[in-house]
Amino acid sequence: MSQAHRVVIVGGGFGGLACARGLKRANVEVTVIDRRNFHLFQPLLYQVATGELSPANIASPIRSILQKQKNCQVLLGAVSGIDLETQSVHIDDRQIPFDSLVIATGSTHSYFGHEEWSEQAPGLKTIEDATEIRKRILYAFERANLATSEEERRAALTFVIVGAGPTGVELSGALSDVGHNMLSKEFRGGHPEELRIILCEGQPDPLGMYPPPLVKKSREELDRLGVELMTSSMVTDIQDDHVVVKHGDEENRIYTRTVIWAAGVRASSLGKIVADETGAETNRVGKILVNNNLSIGEHENLFVIGDLAFLKNEAGDPLPALAPVAMQQGSYVANLIKDRVSGNSGSSKPFHYRDRGSMAVIGRYAAIALVGKKKRQVSGIMAWFIWLFVHLMEITQFRNRLMVLFLWGWTYLTRDRSARLITGKLPRE
Amino acid sequence: MSQAHRVVIVGGGFGGLACARGLKRANVEVTVIDRRNFHLFQPLLYQVATGELSPANIASPIRSILQKQKNCQVLLGAVSGIDLETQSVHIDDRQIPFDSLVIATGSTHSYFGHEEWSEQAPGLKTIEDATEIRKRILYAFERANLATSEEERRAALTFVIVGAGPTGVELSGALSDVGHNMLSKEFRGGHPEELRIILCEGQPDPLGMYPPPLVKKSREELDRLGVELMTSSMVTDIQDDHVVVKHGDEENRIYTRTVIWAAGVRASSLGKIVADETGAETNRVGKILVNNNLSIGEHENLFVIGDLAFLKNEAGDPLPALAPVAMQQGSYVANLIKDRVSGNSGSSKPFHYRDRGSMAVIGRYAAIALVGKKKRQVSGIMAWFIWLFVHLMEITQFRNRLMVLFLWGWTYLTRDRSARLITGKLPRE
Repeated sequence: MSQAHRVVIVGGGFGGLACARGLKRANVEVTVIDRRNFHLFQPLLYQVATGELSPANIASPIRSILQKQKNCQVLLGAVSGIDLETQSVHIDDRQIPFDSLVIATGSTHSYFGHEEWSEQAPGLKTIEDATEIRKRILYAFERANLATSEEERRAALTFVIVGAGPTGVELSGALSDVGHNMLSKEFRGGHPEELRIILCEGQPDPLGMYPPPLVKKSREELDRLGVELMTSSMVTDIQDDHVVVKHGDEENRIYTRTVIWAAGVRASSLGKIVADETGAETNRVGKILVNNNLSIGEHENLFVIGDLAFLKNEAGDPLPALAPVAMQQGSYVANLIKDRVSGNSGSSKPFHYRDRGSMAVIGRYAAIALVGKKKRQVSGIMAWFIWLFVHLMEITQFRNRLMVLFLWGWTYLTRDRSARLITGKLPRE
Repeated sequence: MSQAHRVVIVGGGFGGLACARGLKRANVEVTVIDRRNFHLFQPLLYQVATGELSPANIASPIRSILQKQKNCQVLLGAVSGIDLETQSVHIDDRQIPFDSLVIATGSTHSYFGHEEWSEQAPGLKTIEDATEIRKRILYAFERANLATSEEERRAALTFVIVGAGPTGVELSGALSDVGHNMLSKEFRGGHPEELRIILCEGQPDPLGMYPPPLVKKSREELDRLGVELMTSSMVTDIQDDHVVVKHGDEENRIYTRTVIWAAGVRASSLGKIVADETGAETNRVGKILVNNNLSIGEHENLFVIGDLAFLKNEAGDPLPALAPVAMQQGSYVANLIKDRVSGNSGSSKPFHYRDRGSMAVIGRYAAIALVGKKKRQVSGIMAWFIWLFVHLMEITQFRNRLMVLFLWGWTYLTRDRSARLITGKLPRE
């Protein structure tokens, strides 16, 4: 009896899980390897950062998700090397052999060479990032409450968010809502009128990937929420008690105790290992250039999918770093492997991304969206409901879907936010 | 206009909150000070440790709880000193003046002079303790899954819980349930038959505060759950890869990777500050001996309530460290202060604990309980339902009550445990 074809998938995000599930009925042995024991629904991570949802509401153990899939096993571990000669990946001192390898470890945030800023300005990629940011936000309100001078209080109530892409916009909108609400209802002398949320963007516009009418809408919504938008503005320094923002020739010092980084991304660290071992080309942020069937160079059984892969669409534009792209790529590679295993090598069509639209939420009942193939522009409460519906449908597990629906309903009806816990070590003065 | 009487309450646990709420309609200014921004429902903490509930399900921000109470403000901070001369408490460099002071900071765990064990054997008192234990438990299963030798796997699947009081018994029962379930359903080759849960107790019996028939029941239930009970057994050493247990003259070495401390308690650190400043007597674990109206020595406006207070009942037995005791003491002191403020000094009856019973849960559908004034003994599924009902009724906030009911229903119907996230830093080899 010949051994079944072994597929090793590194990364249990949207791409990796889609690939594993796509192989459900195939005659293969699937191994999913991840450093974490859970899949994270990243589009809602900002709601953990603002205390609207708990970590468990947007994360599900990978073992639970794949529990019923008989041909699949899950390993917890960090891949430290890839060995093409023995066709295996390394976890610590263990070797896991593969016949096909799918790398789907995504991206992390980048400080554009200013790694020293990571302490003062945490980014938002992991559950730990989100609970750290939640702690800093909530602690800033407490610090303002304890402040003995107006200066100190104003600095504590000033928040700077760097980067006005979807994450930065979502965060500032939610922070405005949470902040005004808490300061007026839960603090005696909370000074909600002193709350400043400054959203800083190097480009001329927020959400620059959207068409001008939607960008205009998002500017209006941010304004309505009291978010101060500084475009064409670069952050040039971040210290414990202030940031420096450069706009043209003018440099401004903003006194703040809370800075959140929502600017650059770069490839996850496995990217470099893959590039070194395979000789694959990478782009400027370390993403791996893949063939149009998502394999790397001459290595027909090595695939890179999701945020770690760099691929252009038919029009020559790079594919966006979105969950639907990763999921479609995961399914595509699963089908390719199935075809190869069953000896059906006819279906060698290149990967094609079916763009069903994209959206960004701005605040309560406000979002912008491009819907469907025709990219119809929608904004306001209608876009918000589309956003809500799409995200609820996408949440991986049934239980979490119910739970998130329940929590959202509750939160929006009552503005109650019980997930607002300051956990971990408290910051020192 | 004379200033309102200022009541400062240190600690937002069961006792502190009951006191604050008892002063709701009084002509006083209440300040609640806590190091954490949330109230913790400690009786369910063990369910966070086993991944059945999330931190936010058993914790509520103190600000939310007291949001509607107009005469109450909340301060986040650690009290570093008490100054009787100026009648104020210190938070960092701030002084908070009081007319009445209520100390309700509870207890923490004690290693009986073996503080070096805290690293290998975390206790279960805080949310961080619970997520740390959850991480260790889940990581142990993953370690067993990755083990390259049977020895290594068996050590990873051996859990030692020190102390068979309510916490130790609850933890071992829940761990047995979670462990057998996960190993058989979610791991390929999970070896549930190798799972060992050893519950170690220095006394001759588990749950020794209960009458013999209930102790017998709890032994039977633990046995049914496969928990290995070692009574009259002292832990004499804890290392990274083993513990040493002494039973009579016999010393046994147990190879294990996960040890949980559920043995001793001692007074919280504010206890020493209070004792030093007031000259109050303390018992052997640092609890403060209080007068029968819960004040300290000659200090009529200084009160200690809850776990930090040491007081005997009419029969000469120390009051148990239970939430109902703390809550009744909080209400008692609130009434005392109200009477004094309104000049009604007649009601100087000593504090009397109305014992409505107590209970301990052992596992799924199994508990023991003493119910009502007559202390009727109940065990098995009936006691479990009483336990469930009482805890649901006691959970502080409406939202959490609904949420916990929903989660429990779901968990018990499906055995799904989505809160099983390994967060924080992963342990090194």
